[in-house]
Amino acid sequence: MRAAHYFGERDIRIEDAPRPVIEEPTDAILRVTTSAICGTDLHIYHDKTPGAEPGMIVGHEFVGVVEEVGDAVREIEVGTRAVAAMYTACGRCASCLSGNHRGCPAFMMFGMGPMAGDLPGGQAEYVRVPMAEMTLAPIPDGLPDEDVLLVSDILSTAYSGLKAGAVHPGESVAVVGCGPLGQLVIACAPLLGAAKVFAIDLVSERLKQAAELGAIAIDARDGDPLDAIFDATNNQGADLVIEAVGAEPSLATAFTLPRVGGRIVLLGVLLDEEFPVSAGEVFLRGLSVSAVIGNPFAYRPELMRLIEAGRLEPGRLVSHTMPLDDVAKAYEMFDAKEATKVVLKP
Amino acid sequence: MRAAHYFGERDIRIEDAPRPVIEEPTDAILRVTTSAICGTDLHIYHDKTPGAEPGMIVGHEFVGVVEEVGDAVREIEVGTRAVAAMYTACGRCASCLSGNHRGCPAFMMFGMGPMAGDLPGGQAEYVRVPMAEMTLAPIPDGLPDEDVLLVSDILSTAYSGLKAGAVHPGESVAVVGCGPLGQLVIACAPLLGAAKVFAIDLVSERLKQAAELGAIAIDARDGDPLDAIFDATNNQGADLVIEAVGAEPSLATAFTLPRVGGRIVLLGVLLDEEFPVSAGEVFLRGLSVSAVIGNPFAYRPELMRLIEAGRLEPGRLVSHTMPLDDVAKAYEMFDAKEATKVVLKP
Amino acid sequence: MRAAHYFGERDIRIEDAPRPVIEEPTDAILRVTTSAICGTDLHIYHDKTPGAEPGMIVGHEFVGVVEEVGDAVREIEVGTRAVAAMYTACGRCASCLSGNHRGCPAFMMFGMGPMAGDLPGGQAEYVRVPMAEMTLAPIPDGLPDEDVLLVSDILSTAYSGLKAGAVHPGESVAVVGCGPLGQLVIACAPLLGAAKVFAIDLVSERLKQAAELGAIAIDARDGDPLDAIFDATNNQGADLVIEAVGAEPSLATAFTLPRVGGRIVLLGVLLDEEFPVSAGEVFLRGLSVSAVIGNPFAYRPELMRLIEAGRLEPGRLVSHTMPLDDVAKAYEMFDAKEATKVVLKP
Amino acid sequence: MRAAHYFGERDIRIEDAPRPVIEEPTDAILRVTTSAICGTDLHIYHDKTPGAEPGMIVGHEFVGVVEEVGDAVREIEVGTRAVAAMYTACGRCASCLSGNHRGCPAFMMFGMGPMAGDLPGGQAEYVRVPMAEMTLAPIPDGLPDEDVLLVSDILSTAYSGLKAGAVHPGESVAVVGCGPLGQLVIACAPLLGAAKVFAIDLVSERLKQAAELGAIAIDARDGDPLDAIFDATNNQGADLVIEAVGAEPSLATAFTLPRVGGRIVLLGVLLDEEFPVSAGEVFLRGLSVSAVIGNPFAYRPELMRLIEAGRLEPGRLVSHTMPLDDVAKAYEMFDAKEATKVVLKP
Repeated sequence: MRAAHYFGERDIRIEDAPRPVIEEPTDAILRVTTSAICGTDLHIYHDKTPGAEPGMIVGHEFVGVVEEVGDAVREIEVGTRAVAAMYTACGRCASCLSGNHRGCPAFMMFGMGPMAGDLPGGQAEYVRVPMAEMTLAPIPDGLPDEDVLLVSDILSTAYSGLKAGAVHPGESVAVVGCGPLGQLVIACAPLLGAAKVFAIDLVSERLKQAAELGAIAIDARDGDPLDAIFDATNNQGADLVIEAVGAEPSLATAFTLPRVGGRIVLLGVLLDEEFPVSAGEVFLRGLSVSAVIGNPFAYRPELMRLIEAGRLEPGRLVSHTMPLDDVAKAYEMFDAKEATKVVLKP
Repeated sequence: MRAAHYFGERDIRIEDAPRPVIEEPTDAILRVTTSAICGTDLHIYHDKTPGAEPGMIVGHEFVGVVEEVGDAVREIEVGTRAVAAMYTACGRCASCLSGNHRGCPAFMMFGMGPMAGDLPGGQAEYVRVPMAEMTLAPIPDGLPDEDVLLVSDILSTAYSGLKAGAVHPGESVAVVGCGPLGQLVIACAPLLGAAKVFAIDLVSERLKQAAELGAIAIDARDGDPLDAIFDATNNQGADLVIEAVGAEPSLATAFTLPRVGGRIVLLGVLLDEEFPVSAGEVFLRGLSVSAVIGNPFAYRPELMRLIEAGRLEPGRLVSHTMPLDDVAKAYEMFDAKEATKVVLKP
Repeated sequence: MRAAHYFGERDIRIEDAPRPVIEEPTDAILRVTTSAICGTDLHIYHDKTPGAEPGMIVGHEFVGVVEEVGDAVREIEVGTRAVAAMYTACGRCASCLSGNHRGCPAFMMFGMGPMAGDLPGGQAEYVRVPMAEMTLAPIPDGLPDEDVLLVSDILSTAYSGLKAGAVHPGESVAVVGCGPLGQLVIACAPLLGAAKVFAIDLVSERLKQAAELGAIAIDARDGDPLDAIFDATNNQGADLVIEAVGAEPSLATAFTLPRVGGRIVLLGVLLDEEFPVSAGEVFLRGLSVSAVIGNPFAYRPELMRLIEAGRLEPGRLVSHTMPLDDVAKAYEMFDAKEATKVVLKP
Repeated sequence: MRAAHYFGERDIRIEDAPRPVIEEPTDAILRVTTSAICGTDLHIYHDKTPGAEPGMIVGHEFVGVVEEVGDAVREIEVGTRAVAAMYTACGRCASCLSGNHRGCPAFMMFGMGPMAGDLPGGQAEYVRVPMAEMTLAPIPDGLPDEDVLLVSDILSTAYSGLKAGAVHPGESVAVVGCGPLGQLVIACAPLLGAAKVFAIDLVSERLKQAAELGAIAIDARDGDPLDAIFDATNNQGADLVIEAVGAEPSLATAFTLPRVGGRIVLLGVLLDEEFPVSAGEVFLRGLSVSAVIGNPFAYRPELMRLIEAGRLEPGRLVSHTMPLDDVAKAYEMFDAKEATKVVLKP
């Protein structure tokens, strides 16, 4: 089958690979109908993912049709359309039952190489899905692939950030960075009662998208974003700030925006960036700072229901639909920020 | 001054009364600019309120301008526009600090007679407001009276019901009864993440209003409402059911609608109605049933912020604006359900 | 193998049965080392369990050693000591991921007959355990069977009741009925911050046990329990009342005890008992009433950690240890309330 | 009257001062019966409190008898024994009603100088208490001063830390620093369900006290505390870590102890200390870090109930009782760590 392989820096391209087979009785084989490129994939693309190995198949956001199931699979049938979670978890150990699916001993992430279980990814024609009853969620009739695809990772991550940030009805939320992740935070915040959502970016097109979702767009090129937030919050600052980029400049901005006693959520991937403020300053300002890794299992049931009811339309985020065979070009465009979100069709 | 007095069954009318004066150093005198008639007022109108005394001034939903303050009032200034809470609470005792404002020893309700502290109501030109810094909340600039007026009672009650019902994002909420209270439940539910809101009534106009707020309207004259809810919930039933009428037929309907393990909130005023099911049935179906009395203090800050941000527009509910002098006619119309919500202007 | 079979009213006795075998790749066979008789088993014993069929093997509280596993079992090894949950759930569907394990399509209860999946019970030498990785939890080294055995059902049920009753630190909890279930509620309440726990019963020995666990014992033969509770709560009543019997007299008592705005949890099994008060009274007193069915999956991780740390010692509840072969006598004694909790050793 | 005045570095001593009088109608005058020296007072003693002015009266933990009340005080009577909160808040503004009492415009802190409202402190014979109905809480009959005194600040702060850290039943809590604040965290943690509490310090006496409260004492002089915590947590680390010192070495220790996905609460006062790890490390380890300032109003009702029921005995912490006249010596001893907690009697 055809599949997107990583070979090195800026070198992700289609090669043939053996079609995957059932290895465990709890596996399923999914015929992928749509996959997406995620910001995390760009870390691989830039050779920054520890342990990434040339030749590995990438992709952890994908949707498809169940083609085959192992002997122990009961609840998922061949022919079912399903969306996968970006990583696996057993659902049954103490860690999973406590809601900490990321801490499950059975954790593996699709398409991230040996450091994450060496599980081939889903930017491919077929993908082997371990613990299929847990990893896959059936798609309600009538929903297009694009609307449920992002439950696998980026939508769950956006939503997890708001939940970890304990957004409360009536509060204000400032989102630093309006790429795909930030846009989904902006789309979800009103569902959790946010009264005002501030969208901060440097790119006009992204700010326009954010405004269409109901956010108050703040162009950071026009001055200190804190001024605009002070104006709209009686000079208090934002109740919750979500850093959705993962870079030092936006991190520095994020720490300027919360009110005394406010909260900051670190949602963009950080590796070795320093804190822009001292621990003493965090104490004196009464802040809390939470790093969040998305949990698709914890929030998938409610996200699916919100999508099914039309209250979330994540498919609106897709700017480009391309054949899987054009994956090299797709990465190039996404990396150049020429595309908000690219989906690939095998 | 002119004020609406209760004299007996179906006899509420304008009479002169002495203008109220400061009695306690923590009092304020409010010049009322807008008041509303509430469903609870109809209990008085029908002579069903225990202890109601002829000659008492009614009304517990009102907005105005601070005309005078007692010596101990610091945070509320003369000239401030403010909305009152329907009842008083000190904000400082163990009960208030625990969030149980209804259990405060300083509890009195406006316009409800001697059983509730004998505090004259606000369907009048002026009203004395005890513990003014607590009872009154300043109105953000630019908001019309009508949009904040209902924070005093009915909006807080609707919101309290959803909070007590612990509505969770993605859930379905069935609202039995689409009078003013039900309409406000319908308006608030999506702010707390409800995915599907079912509106059940027998009156086409009310169902139309509910549909305009995004609800799925179910006309109970067309068949068993449970059928429609089953269709929309995979035959599960509603996660949360809110009884917003306070009568046996709607109570009976409410108990048919929740899923196994679901929740019922009793929001409409009940007096001696029986349960339509046995305790055994409640156990076997795993239901919870919560009676809720609205708490304007607990939720006023967030409701004001949601209104200010334009996410709630309670003023849309006002169907009739009448002079205070026409109060007798206003009660008649409201009682006849010819008006959704009547506001009075002195 | 030997196993306790139900044959009819007051007729549960040992007969031979075929040793169970692996039927599904996710099964395990457990060699039972200790089982217990639960109050729910007495419903079978009295022929009140709908669908109970003569010849069925009973018992849903048991602990043992994994003897054999199916091909798909990875996380549980042969030789592991483990405690079973009283019912099965997949852990992976939307219902399970939402915390509603009782609503899982894969629900079956051990030893309860065809209405609950026709799954043979664990008062036997061996038992087949479906979805073993979910149903079984490994026992930390050094813990005796008796201390973890009750996590399967009755301890989880007691704990679920307190959680559903939302007990808050500093609150008072009244427990109506001090049988095994009530005793475990009493043991758990302080771990969730309860300041005062009232234990109400008619049996001196049970009240003495409750007092040893730190409860304030109230002998209902000495007068109205509400008097004692009023004395200890400034005439408020209890914040939370837990009915742990499942009978009309105790239900009637339970409804007298909560403060205005308090909560009642129905934990004892009810079938067709009527409410002792009207819905109107529930409304006017601002009560909430929740029926609770225990969820061992939701709380097993934390209960196991509390037991391991020595903060809970459920084994103290065991009053009699008998050979499995004496099961008929064990039921007789437990039914006659001559034993608090009987465990059986094959 | 006699009162403890600050005059400069290491110079706090008794001088005469005018007896305070009612200034506002909501004031009370409290005759102090017991006050305590708090760790925060040592910041003044070491001249590190911004804005501290020579001649100011210090002390923010105190208990007494109401001697006189202003015209607007209704709920607190002369002769009532009461404990004060360390700072004032109105209880009635949007900030207070949202639970953010520290953000109240009426905030003033006793004995902290002009930066905190210039409100004279309570290490004195008498003290003026603004907004007395809010600031003061009546003491239940029979409780000694010493048991309720610490509700004013340090006990509320310890408890606030555990609440902000969202300690969950069954979890492990590591407390870095076993001074008075740490000891109270250790005493409160089991009330919120903590299964294992680790107490880390360098002083044998403090570790002994912690062990008496049920903690697992870890002497940091014996090796890396993480080793001991790994041993007791299956090599996971602590679920929650509370830094209760406010210094770089203990901050550095605190950041080594949480499990992946764990939480750190900054409870000790920090001023300009740096973070011991990068933001990137916080992200990769999935940590959350929360700075907490104690809130006596939010938790006073439940703390008083827990103390009254005997579940908390904060008076055990008092190591020295001295006459107010010996305040200079008391500060010297407390600063030298020769006393765990000193209380002063006028």
